[in-house]
Amino acid sequence: MAANSSGGMHDAPLDNGFAGTDDLVSDWYIYETMEPAVPQDDMFPSVIPDCDPTISPKLYHICMAPISHGPSEAFRAHNSSEQVEKHLSLLQPWLDLGCWVAMLAVLVGLSLLVKRRRLHRSCWNGVPGLLSPANFLEEEGNRGLVAAVFGILFSSLCVLVLDRDPLPLVAHSSQSTREYWKILALLYYPAFYYPLIACATVRHRVSYLVGCLLSWCHCVVHIWQKVDCPQSPKIYRYYSMLSYVPIILCLVLLSLWYPALLIRSFTGQEEILDKEVTGRGYYKKYLKAVLSKRPRKGSSTKIEESLLSRVQTYLRSYIYAPEEGFRIPLKLVLSITTAVIAVYQVALLLLVAVVPTIQIVRAGMTKDIVVLLVQFGLVPSESPAVPGDMEKELNTVKYYLWSLEVCYICSLVLCCLLTCAMLLRTLVMHRNNLKALYQGAVLDVFYKAHILRPSRQAVVCWMSFASFQTAFACLGLLIQQVIFFICSVGFTFFFVIPLQSGTNTHFFKIIQNMWPFWLTLVVAVIVQNLAARYQFLEQHPLRKELTNRRALYIVTYLLFPINVLVGVLAGVWRMVISGLYNAVHFCQLDISLLNRGVETFDPGYHTYCHYLKIEVSQSHPVMKAFCLLLLQLARPERPLGVQASNVEEGIQLMQPKKALPSRARFKQSRARWWLAYTLLNNPSLRACRKTALSDPTANGTQLSPPKP
Amino acid sequence: MAANSSGGMHDAPLDNGFAGTDDLVSDWYIYETMEPAVPQDDMFPSVIPDCDPTISPKLYHICMAPISHGPSEAFRAHNSSEQVEKHLSLLQPWLDLGCWVAMLAVLVGLSLLVKRRRLHRSCWNGVPGLLSPANFLEEEGNRGLVAAVFGILFSSLCVLVLDRDPLPLVAHSSQSTREYWKILALLYYPAFYYPLIACATVRHRVSYLVGCLLSWCHCVVHIWQKVDCPQSPKIYRYYSMLSYVPIILCLVLLSLWYPALLIRSFTGQEEILDKEVTGRGYYKKYLKAVLSKRPRKGSSTKIEESLLSRVQTYLRSYIYAPEEGFRIPLKLVLSITTAVIAVYQVALLLLVAVVPTIQIVRAGMTKDIVVLLVQFGLVPSESPAVPGDMEKELNTVKYYLWSLEVCYICSLVLCCLLTCAMLLRTLVMHRNNLKALYQGAVLDVFYKAHILRPSRQAVVCWMSFASFQTAFACLGLLIQQVIFFICSVGFTFFFVIPLQSGTNTHFFKIIQNMWPFWLTLVVAVIVQNLAARYQFLEQHPLRKELTNRRALYIVTYLLFPINVLVGVLAGVWRMVISGLYNAVHFCQLDISLLNRGVETFDPGYHTYCHYLKIEVSQSHPVMKAFCLLLLQLARPERPLGVQASNVEEGIQLMQPKKALPSRARFKQSRARWWLAYTLLNNPSLRACRKTALSDPTANGTQLSPPKP
Repeated sequence: MAANSSGGMHDAPLDNGFAGTDDLVSDWYIYETMEPAVPQDDMFPSVIPDCDPTISPKLYHICMAPISHGPSEAFRAHNSSEQVEKHLSLLQPWLDLGCWVAMLAVLVGLSLLVKRRRLHRSCWNGVPGLLSPANFLEEEGNRGLVAAVFGILFSSLCVLVLDRDPLPLVAHSSQSTREYWKILALLYYPAFYYPLIACATVRHRVSYLVGCLLSWCHCVVHIWQKVDCPQSPKIYRYYSMLSYVPIILCLVLLSLWYPALLIRSFTGQEEILDKEVTGRGYYKKYLKAVLSKRPRKGSSTKIEESLLSRVQTYLRSYIYAPEEGFRIPLKLVLSITTAVIAVYQVALLLLVAVVPTIQIVRAGMTKDIVVLLVQFGLVPSESPAVPGDMEKELNTVKYYLWSLEVCYICSLVLCCLLTCAMLLRTLVMHRNNLKALYQGAVLDVFYKAHILRPSRQAVVCWMSFASFQTAFACLGLLIQQVIFFICSVGFTFFFVIPLQSGTNTHFFKIIQNMWPFWLTLVVAVIVQNLAARYQFLEQHPLRKELTNRRALYIVTYLLFPINVLVGVLAGVWRMVISGLYNAVHFCQLDISLLNRGVETFDPGYHTYCHYLKIEVSQSHPVMKAFCLLLLQLARPERPLGVQASNVEEGIQLMQPKKALPSRARFKQSRARWWLAYTLLNNPSLRACRKTALSDPTANGTQLSPPKP
Repeated sequence: MAANSSGGMHDAPLDNGFAGTDDLVSDWYIYETMEPAVPQDDMFPSVIPDCDPTISPKLYHICMAPISHGPSEAFRAHNSSEQVEKHLSLLQPWLDLGCWVAMLAVLVGLSLLVKRRRLHRSCWNGVPGLLSPANFLEEEGNRGLVAAVFGILFSSLCVLVLDRDPLPLVAHSSQSTREYWKILALLYYPAFYYPLIACATVRHRVSYLVGCLLSWCHCVVHIWQKVDCPQSPKIYRYYSMLSYVPIILCLVLLSLWYPALLIRSFTGQEEILDKEVTGRGYYKKYLKAVLSKRPRKGSSTKIEESLLSRVQTYLRSYIYAPEEGFRIPLKLVLSITTAVIAVYQVALLLLVAVVPTIQIVRAGMTKDIVVLLVQFGLVPSESPAVPGDMEKELNTVKYYLWSLEVCYICSLVLCCLLTCAMLLRTLVMHRNNLKALYQGAVLDVFYKAHILRPSRQAVVCWMSFASFQTAFACLGLLIQQVIFFICSVGFTFFFVIPLQSGTNTHFFKIIQNMWPFWLTLVVAVIVQNLAARYQFLEQHPLRKELTNRRALYIVTYLLFPINVLVGVLAGVWRMVISGLYNAVHFCQLDISLLNRGVETFDPGYHTYCHYLKIEVSQSHPVMKAFCLLLLQLARPERPLGVQASNVEEGIQLMQPKKALPSRARFKQSRARWWLAYTLLNNPSLRACRKTALSDPTANGTQLSPPKP
């Protein structure tokens, strides 16, 4: 819309003194006209050949959507592509509806599969379990698989936002309807990739097999398409291919993961699988780590730490190293995965949108333009501006453009590294916060006391947490790139190039002229510090006391104007440091960018706080461990020698060997003690326990399984 | 320095197609050439008449410096100005040295005066008291006077920074030496105005008389100079006069304050004066307020407060209303005074540097320039750009420029109001923080526990606190002006003008085209909230519990792409709110602009924290009250009926009437109880008390007076 009007601007007749500049103006459109005078090297062939992949995206989606959502409709994919396209083009409006119906069908089918298995095992559960394959966000195995599917989803979103044909089923959408198709596509893609995630959660050999086939199909089609047509005219010739790299990598991961699951399910590792599936292994480890925790070594020597070791500790706090007995929740893993993919996609976009353009401008730079730049004072020149003798200036301009390019790439690399470091750091912070909250230390995490209880807001924030983390990583990278690029360009053109060439030394001249001023400020600060140290402070052995007050007042008064100037510098530093800090930490949701009194007005931090509430209150590992014990008790294959009361105490987690029946009483007392110890270390559990005990069904053996 | 090279840029020969544009280019210099075609109204006469005030600044300083610093040299001012100037121009290098010597002389003179008075009264103090007139930053009377002198000082600094002749003694300084004179002037002005402040602190009739004469002289000379020469060529014709307004106002205040002091000292109000001077009145009030404090009304009903009353409370927290029994320390009064003057000076500079320029450009706008603007697409035009028929477009351009001017002035007014509101707010915060710290509630103020004890850093920060507050107010106003001006220009040119004229409606078109997108986001957010409220939360009467987890996971997965887009909006909001918050609160030192974990890296907040340490540990009102009691005890005119131990307990502060001697024991016990109560309410005093008791001199009647 904006392009139309700005395009018309150049067509206005130039009849008031600019008649002689037509050839000059046309040079500005060098990118479009690409004159033969410009060296045509291999880097910039002018036309990208039109390319239709053998498997068009439309065909792929038309075939894969039914296959994904109902294997019974798979036969439709066997027809040749032209026939199908012609045939199905009439049915476009119905296809989307069909997709959704098919998704529902696959849901019903998978849940029946689950139900059959459950019925076969035992009849304890009367719930139809319609949504059984949907508990993929539980704290269970296959975390990598879920993360990969979310990665695919986010990459698809990135491709979709910039695409002209957002919904592949609807080719060549018009300008007016594109908005609607894009919105529909926002819902279509999650449904399209849903089977990839659902097949793993069903936990059945057939579903693993379906997952294998699906992921292979997706993977092969995507790779084939990109091998077939590596170039596209969108933004940059290779942008399309590069933006698909995360999708392909995630699909490769999936197509290796599913076979592994299938093989495992055949080779009788059911036992281990089951253990991993229910997550018992992790919760057991967590409990052991909590219960066996010893006083940290060197807690008393912490005060005596040297500067070096403190720096080491600080740097180590930025590196996330997995810790025994603690696992980051799945939602956080998802959010970090998608955030890293977001960094890749945004960095790629920033790179391909600017660098090729600079290179083209550099290659197409002519002496006429250089004359203009010299006249505007942008390029230094010793000789008067004559177009015939501008070789040196042309090289200077090219060198400047090359410097710009280097600055841009350097700042982009720096931004990516910083953002990734901050994402690593955020993982460390998440772990610390979760550990503190698991132990009930609310005030270590929040500034004010919070009640860790689900609420409407908390549920909404939990739902959108991963998305917010991803979006903030994108925006953070953009902001950083803008800031660092400006800084690096300033540094290059005010410091490096003047030092190299000896021209444009305004900045150095200013510094040189102002040295008495800087010296005065430095001297004033030093004098104040020295006077404070040796004149205004009485060096009493126990406590320092103020002395020489009248001299202090006089010095304060006399240095007031100089201190105002020092204050201006401090204010500039305040501005710079707060801007830089906020830009660098923009992608971290665990940090509020606002002052501590109003920190929850920051939407990112607000989301994080509420997310923590749900995570801690609903997925506390100790609570989960107890729930799993209760589930195990309900299973018939479990030996019933263990007393019910003993199980309810959750003590056998701590039994390394079979205990003798004669020592039952000692065990009971020890069990109670462990329980008390557990509750003491995890105060937030107390409320849960109280509810559980007051619940009439929890006291008997008629234990209802908690909703997983 | 930069102006030289950029000026040369325009002189480069334009021999490549721009030959026909010379007359166009010359139009750009309309401000300088001011062609006769431009309407020459009364607002913009082209030449400001040269004006030499009857009392030149040089003469003023040459005369006033000796007068200020040594009344014996006053005779030199009686010569005629030409003679003095000719005579003294040879002695310039020695004059500054002379000033300093004179200042030392006046210091010695005033301190001898003080000492004489002290000797006359009693011989208790052996200290020579050389710096006696220098305790002007104590918590005593004449706060307005001190604040006025600091205001004069800061205004002089503002004038000095932009002035060509920074040191009035040295006229027509060259470019190279100006830097040095400016630095010297930074030290000269405090010395020049020092007598104005010193005369009040001596507390003697003669000094008040000298103060009267000095302030009258300064005041009359300044007013005379400005009446003589209201215009100057610097920046804007009236800028010089307007920038001197705060100085003149402060001098008027001084020249009223000193006579009042003098009259008071004659009319036998010595008693009241003495009371005010020692500050006993305030400390007594503070103690009474602390000791008689009752439980706040409505503390239990606070939870039930309605939204309206909470908003009222919040708004009231921005308005500083003096509170009985508490007075803001002098240093804070100074900092706020200079900050307000800083707001005035910066706003004035911003106003006169831009608005007259816009007005001149508007008045000098011709049709040729309009054609250029139309060609660049900056001004909408229906007809093709023909210079002859551009009446309508010329009016549009003038209207645009007028809009710019209005935006600029509106945003400047808004900035000033906001900054002043924040300065008021900062006073409220200071009071709250000081009250909390006086009562020992360190964690209410600081995030981590601090020891309130003077240190080198704390002393330096205390010295520079007022300067930093002033500098931050300047910078904060600048930053706000930039942000608000851009915002208001954007609002005007994208909203208001398109709505008025119906042109340039790109923005509305974009909004219109994107409405399905916005609608989708809004619907998605509403759906999530509704689902969270009614589907995913079990409405248990006691505690809410999560339910329908699988549906929650499916919804989370399906809405992930939409939530990413919501997250982008939230990220933009995060950026905007943190930027705006930091810009608006930039002038507040009591707020850190950084996250709570690293808040002391903010130089402003760091200074404030250390300032508080000194203020609380050295000027605690209860401690001061005790010190004053000890001083009173040492005076002979005090009736010695009150027992020494009783005085040391500081109890007679609480005695409204003379107690009967028979009830001495009851009083003693009550006194002890009051003491315990005081110490309980002011834990930070305990350390002081312990030191005082362990000090061997403090136990006997040989009480050494604490250094005031």
